[in-house]
Order: sequence, then structure tokens, then C-alpha cells
Amino acid sequence: MEPTLTLITLDLAGCFVFALSGGLVAVRKELDIFGVVVLACVTGLGGGFLRDMAIGATPVAALSDWRYLVVPMCAGLLTFFFHPALGRLGPLINVFDALGLGLFVIAGALKALDYGLSPLAAAIMGLATGVGGGVIRDVLAGLVPVILRRSVFYAIPGFAGASVVAFGLYFELPPDAVMAAAFVICVGWRLLAMWRHWEAPLPRGSASV
Amino acid sequence: MEPTLTLITLDLAGCFVFALSGGLVAVRKELDIFGVVVLACVTGLGGGFLRDMAIGATPVAALSDWRYLVVPMCAGLLTFFFHPALGRLGPLINVFDALGLGLFVIAGALKALDYGLSPLAAAIMGLATGVGGGVIRDVLAGLVPVILRRSVFYAIPGFAGASVVAFGLYFELPPDAVMAAAFVICVGWRLLAMWRHWEAPLPRGSASV
Amino acid sequence: MEPTLTLITLDLAGCFVFALSGGLVAVRKELDIFGVVVLACVTGLGGGFLRDMAIGATPVAALSDWRYLVVPMCAGLLTFFFHPALGRLGPLINVFDALGLGLFVIAGALKALDYGLSPLAAAIMGLATGVGGGVIRDVLAGLVPVILRRSVFYAIPGFAGASVVAFGLYFELPPDAVMAAAFVICVGWRLLAMWRHWEAPLPRGSASV
Repeated sequence: MEPTLTLITLDLAGCFVFALSGGLVAVRKELDIFGVVVLACVTGLGGGFLRDMAIGATPVAALSDWRYLVVPMCAGLLTFFFHPALGRLGPLINVFDALGLGLFVIAGALKALDYGLSPLAAAIMGLATGVGGGVIRDVLAGLVPVILRRSVFYAIPGFAGASVVAFGLYFELPPDAVMAAAFVICVGWRLLAMWRHWEAPLPRGSASV
Repeated sequence: MEPTLTLITLDLAGCFVFALSGGLVAVRKELDIFGVVVLACVTGLGGGFLRDMAIGATPVAALSDWRYLVVPMCAGLLTFFFHPALGRLGPLINVFDALGLGLFVIAGALKALDYGLSPLAAAIMGLATGVGGGVIRDVLAGLVPVILRRSVFYAIPGFAGASVVAFGLYFELPPDAVMAAAFVICVGWRLLAMWRHWEAPLPRGSASV
Repeated sequence: MEPTLTLITLDLAGCFVFALSGGLVAVRKELDIFGVVVLACVTGLGGGFLRDMAIGATPVAALSDWRYLVVPMCAGLLTFFFHPALGRLGPLINVFDALGLGLFVIAGALKALDYGLSPLAAAIMGLATGVGGGVIRDVLAGLVPVILRRSVFYAIPGFAGASVVAFGLYFELPPDAVMAAAFVICVGWRLLAMWRHWEAPLPRGSASV
């Protein structure tokens, strides 16, 4: 499957936005300029690295296209120099973050199906692509990953979107409609969850164990 | 080597028990329902993922058999809804955890030998299979991995069991006897260590460095 | 490319020194003997594991040569029993650590080029080889990785050295001169940065985001 220019542009946009989020965490942790760039790159590329290593698509995709290396580096430098301005863009960043999640889970599920995985496995790989970078970012910064703490924002819409793609294509529904539906569900859910302050159920009772 | 139904059942049981341990850590960290399920899955599957990515057995095994995906998901949901009851089963869980360790190190060492690794490398991969999930669980939860802190419970019996399998099969001893011996050594050691409160030697003198 | 005995000796020396640094962190964290050995091995081998899994060189190199497994184990045991003496060797250890970084980034970039990666991707893989073990060490020990906090010591010289190798060989400059230059730049920079207390720029303004 030759990815179209549109798809690549969207994928790079997702990578850029995720890298910004990594750079902002690094600024908050008072890392220096190279620490900011490295954390930005790891966040932007981590999900795809994990997916490609797990399904055996090596060398991993980001290493064979220089744009995937340059885009998160630029995002890191931008964050380093202009983080106060980015802070004022908070709501806009959140929208981009939601778009990035949608793009990454769809791209991840598609690639996993391409490598012959079952729909359920492809849905899980889609989720891993969408949230892997953020998990690595938080672990490196010494935080419990936000994806585990606020699953309504990440795990639920990510898995929903990835499942729509994986099962929709498996049952040979029209690809364009399936991908559009997955994108709307994932991004819409993410934005609604943030806007309406949705929360997932917490365990009842004390953690007696 | 076609794994028998017995072997698969035992392997799934190990995955289930490890996933329970991941779910319990998630409950203690007050994660929500999806956080619990994700941490359960990562704990149950992480060791095998690491092993398969390192030896090049991709797509990793857990992604090509839906049972390996459904079992830890169910374990996570069970933990979420019934964690107080699971807490009362504490001693029983510990026994299952020991059985899981035994099964995973044996399965890990066997698979590594199958991929042409040397006995020492296969023993190390067996240990990685047995403890990898727990390491990822603890890192995600912001803890220093228990396998590093209480090595008599995990690293020592795991490496012992994996070494018996790896070197026993390398020197062409009877496979069934080798695996039985490895299982008894690993699980027995783990249970004895817990029951008798064994401890491994600590560094002497202050950490002057 | 058949690695010469000299190259392998130097590579093992780098692995040994990195493993010492992992063992010392483990002693400081009061881990027991097996915890010290495991953290030493993970630190000495982690960078190469990451690189090989990302470029698809599996089974990863360390698993197919017993010396790469025995050397960090010995380093871990040495640290456990003689850590006060190692502490007095502090400055010497720092020199070895710098040499290890230089060797690892060169070896990493060479191997990545060998697997057909672009120069930029090879430079990044060289950096990952040089700092990956330390990142895993710090994450397991519950620390924010030192490579992110003190990038003048690690990320900058590592990336500089790896870039010299990757682009120098790509443009077909004489390999020996390229590698020598990369080694001098990387190790010299690292030692100068430590000796002169260099610091990389920090983000200006408060982290408003």
C-alpha cells in the first residue's frame, strides 16, 4: 500500500504534535536544550517504534524516512525557544493532540493488518501506536503515564478507533468510510471527553491488596 | 515444535496470574477501569513481547493467538470488579505467581533455544520472559521493579530454572525430566524463599559512590 | 564487516564500564546481589539491544556471543564486592565512561549504516546505542535519565561522534580517519565538558504550560 501524500502529511502532523507535548513535559522538568529535543523525538516516534518492533517491520519506518526524524527535532527546538507562546495555545494544542491520536491509531491498525495480524491484535497495535510515545515520555520524565491515569482521554477513544479500522477492514467494509468513521469516533470522543470532563469508573472499595 | 494443549493451557494460566498482579498494582495506584485493564495486559504479555522482539520472533507470539489477548483482558476486568475478594486470596495468588514464573521461564528458554541461541543466552531470555512483565508493570506504576529489590523471589529461581532447561536440553538430557526438574527447582525455590523469608546478600559498607 | 579483535576488545571494554556504572547505581539503591548483577547487565547491554531490535538485527548481537553476557555479569559481581574501592576510582571511571560512550556510538552508527540506514538515521542509532543502557538503568532505578538532565555530557558528544561516522562514511571519506575523528570528538568533548563544567542552555522563562 503506497501511502498517499495526504496520509503522510497527516501522519507527520501527528508526529509533530506529539513531539510538542514531549517538549513541553521536558521544559516543565527543566531539562536543557538537548534534553528537550530528545524527549520530543522519543515522544513523537516512540509509538511507531514499538509497533514496528513488535510486528517485525524492521528497520522501523521512522528510520527509513528522514522527514520522521527532522519533524520531531524541529518540534523540540520550537518548544525550547517558544514554550511560553505554546502555553498560551493550550486549547489548540489539545485539539492537535486529539487529531494526532486519531491519525496514529488508524495508521497503526492499518499497518498491523498489512502484516497479517488478526483484527483484535491490529486494534491493540493501533492503540499502542497512538499512546506508546506518550507512555515513554511519561516514564522518562518520572511520571505515571497519563494514558493509564486518564483513560477516557486516550485508551478508550484510541482502542475504539483502532477497533473500527481493524474489524471494519477485516469484514471488507469500504475502506474510506471505515477510516472516516474511526477518525470521527476517536477524535470526537477525545474532544468530547475533555470538554465535558468525562471520567471512567474507578475501582470501588479501598485497595485492600 | 507444536505446543501441546497442556502447555498452552499452562502458559495461559501463567499469563492470567501475572495479569492479575498487574491489575492489583493498578487498583492500588487508583487507576480507572481502562488503566487497570491496560496494566494487566502489559504485565501478562510484556515478558513474551520482550523475548520475541529480542530473538526476532516477530510478529510476537501474543499477537498471533487471540487467547493471549483475551485472557489478560479478562484478568484485568476481574481485578477491577473483584479486587477485595482477590486481596483475601493473597496466599493463593502467591502460589499462582510462583507457578506462572516457572512456566514462563521454561517456555522462554525453550523458545530461545529453538531460535538457535546458546544455552547461556537462552537462560537469560528465559529469565527475561519470566520477569519482564513485572518489570514493565513496576516501571509504569512508578516503582523500582520488585525483581531488582527481592531477587531471591524472582531473579534467582527464575535464572536457576531457565538455566536447567537451557543447559539440560543443550546437553541432550531427556526433555521431560529436564523441564520437570526446572519447574520444581524454580517454583519450589520461589515458594520456599517466600515461606522462609530468605534474603539475598546486600552490599556491605555504605554506598560511597 | 568482520570486526577485528581490537574492535571487539574495545567494545567489551565499553560494555564493562557501562555495566560498572549500572552496578554502582544498584548499590546506591541498596539492591541485593542479584539486583546489582541484573542492573549491571541491563546497563551494559541495553543500548545494543535497543539498536538491534530497531534495525531488525535479531537475534540481537549480545545474545549470540557469550562474552557480551559474561563481561557485564563479572562487572556486576565486581561492583557488588568492591564498590568502596570503585568509589575511590571515581575519576578513572569517568574516563572509562567517556571511552565507552565513544566506542558505543561509533559501533552503533557503523552497524546501522551496514543495515542500509540513511546517515541521519544511523547517527540517531549511534546515539541510541551509546546512551540507551544508561537510560534503561535510570528508568529502572526510578530516576529521570541523566542523559536528559546533563545533555552536554552525553547527548551532544554522542550525537556529534555518531554524526561524524555516519556522514563521513556516507560521503566515502577514509574510514580510519573518520572513526578516529569521531572518537576524538566524542571522548574529548565528554571529558572537556566534565572538566570545565560545561552546561547546555536551559529554557528561558517559567514553564508556563
